[in-house]
Amino acid sequence: MPSPFTLTRTVAFNETDAAGIVHFSNFFRYMEDAEHACLRSLGLSVHRDIGDDVAGFPRVSAQCDYRRPLRFEDVFTIAVTVTAKTDKSVTYGFTFSKEGEDGPIATGTLKVVYAIKPAGAGKFSAAPLPPEIDAALQIDPN
Amino acid sequence: MPSPFTLTRTVAFNETDAAGIVHFSNFFRYMEDAEHACLRSLGLSVHRDIGDDVAGFPRVSAQCDYRRPLRFEDVFTIAVTVTAKTDKSVTYGFTFSKEGEDGPIATGTLKVVYAIKPAGAGKFSAAPLPPEIDAALQIDPN
Amino acid sequence: MPSPFTLTRTVAFNETDAAGIVHFSNFFRYMEDAEHACLRSLGLSVHRDIGDDVAGFPRVSAQCDYRRPLRFEDVFTIAVTVTAKTDKSVTYGFTFSKEGEDGPIATGTLKVVYAIKPAGAGKFSAAPLPPEIDAALQIDPN
Amino acid sequence: MPSPFTLTRTVAFNETDAAGIVHFSNFFRYMEDAEHACLRSLGLSVHRDIGDDVAGFPRVSAQCDYRRPLRFEDVFTIAVTVTAKTDKSVTYGFTFSKEGEDGPIATGTLKVVYAIKPAGAGKFSAAPLPPEIDAALQIDPN
Repeated sequence: MPSPFTLTRTVAFNETDAAGIVHFSNFFRYMEDAEHACLRSLGLSVHRDIGDDVAGFPRVSAQCDYRRPLRFEDVFTIAVTVTAKTDKSVTYGFTFSKEGEDGPIATGTLKVVYAIKPAGAGKFSAAPLPPEIDAALQIDPN
Repeated sequence: MPSPFTLTRTVAFNETDAAGIVHFSNFFRYMEDAEHACLRSLGLSVHRDIGDDVAGFPRVSAQCDYRRPLRFEDVFTIAVTVTAKTDKSVTYGFTFSKEGEDGPIATGTLKVVYAIKPAGAGKFSAAPLPPEIDAALQIDPN
Repeated sequence: MPSPFTLTRTVAFNETDAAGIVHFSNFFRYMEDAEHACLRSLGLSVHRDIGDDVAGFPRVSAQCDYRRPLRFEDVFTIAVTVTAKTDKSVTYGFTFSKEGEDGPIATGTLKVVYAIKPAGAGKFSAAPLPPEIDAALQIDPN
Repeated sequence: MPSPFTLTRTVAFNETDAAGIVHFSNFFRYMEDAEHACLRSLGLSVHRDIGDDVAGFPRVSAQCDYRRPLRFEDVFTIAVTVTAKTDKSVTYGFTFSKEGEDGPIATGTLKVVYAIKPAGAGKFSAAPLPPEIDAALQIDPN
């Protein structure tokens, strides 16, 4: 993957709150949107069908540090890198920034596991990352 | 059903927007929450499994008129009635109000169809309301 | 304005629900996003400061008819036109479609009033559309 | 404060996603709802006006570990405690659980600062916790 992968967005009005800024929970939605756009850019999707089985990336943990707020119609960029990997999990790092402003607006991480739900089964079980996903998601060397 | 069925809630911070009021889209979420609470009060659920088939109530249309805003921590009540019914559809009417205030804050409607997705099928098809649902959802006489 | 103004988007995962489709309330967020993008394309914003006063477009009514669902990662287009106008209000019409599919996925309307909140005042009052907004928002002739 | 303060809720349909479970971002909304309900139970609010100044608790960091999913109509409890405090900040700890199930569904933390926006100022600045808030928010001894 190009590292970092970046996604640029404009703050939507419904993402703001009565404090006049983007609600803190929406940074997690932005992170996931960037993760998914990154996977799509690699020809992957966060959800896929393998025969009748379903594979996905359930979230294990999520974290965000907020430095400065985002407001309605702000244009901002989310940079995504892979910061850690095990045979079954991927940890993404995210940096939010605005053009012309020094330093990040926010930084965050998202740890996901690769998991498969066999046809007819009620729940997902962690599984090794398939080779093509493992190859595509390279830890950022920086 | 007791008519109207009522649900009382407190506005959550994440439901507000930068205009300092509840985002207009959230009134539709409130309506659906009241619909589902109403169904639960009747021993029904909006989603159910019939053997391996799945039944639900896909939304056909939704509408809301806004009179006055709701703000963070406002306590308000949503009254639900059945305003129309066909053999396959139910139309709910909703009235939002705040204690001590005259007249509704907002009014809305939601038309849903009863639909079944047979096991293995990719999509829902409209179906007649089962007798127990038809009996439970009575058109408000007022 | 170019009529219709169009906005193309990809369905985000957080916009879906347990029925596997975009939650019906999110169509109203999509409509508003398209309205705001349309205003930006005209050099306008839905919120603006006039000296110490604040002007905006509170929502008066919203409506949506749903024909077919949208799913995660679907790419869809929202077309916006002005369908009606009074001296203080604008009604937008929206058509949701997917490339290669016949007929709209959904259609909706949003009626908004122009309103000003004078500095220090607690609430908005409806006001005539300023000439530049009135001129920019032309009723679609079709 | 009674420690822990608890809030019991039912999962709303709009809080679920296409994986059939509560979207991970909504756990942060649940945490904030529990924080605000806790403050209200103490006679406090997360936002308040001090003359013409505005005081609030901007979020500094948020974190959540996910163990098991929540699904539509699940009834769950969020327990809130104060886990750390400085003269200007409060860190809350949250534990999500379901009756009859062993072990938490999820655990999280939220660090907030007390901040004041003087009348006419554009932004908040961190300030010492007022004595009544400091007294009300006691670190959990367990």
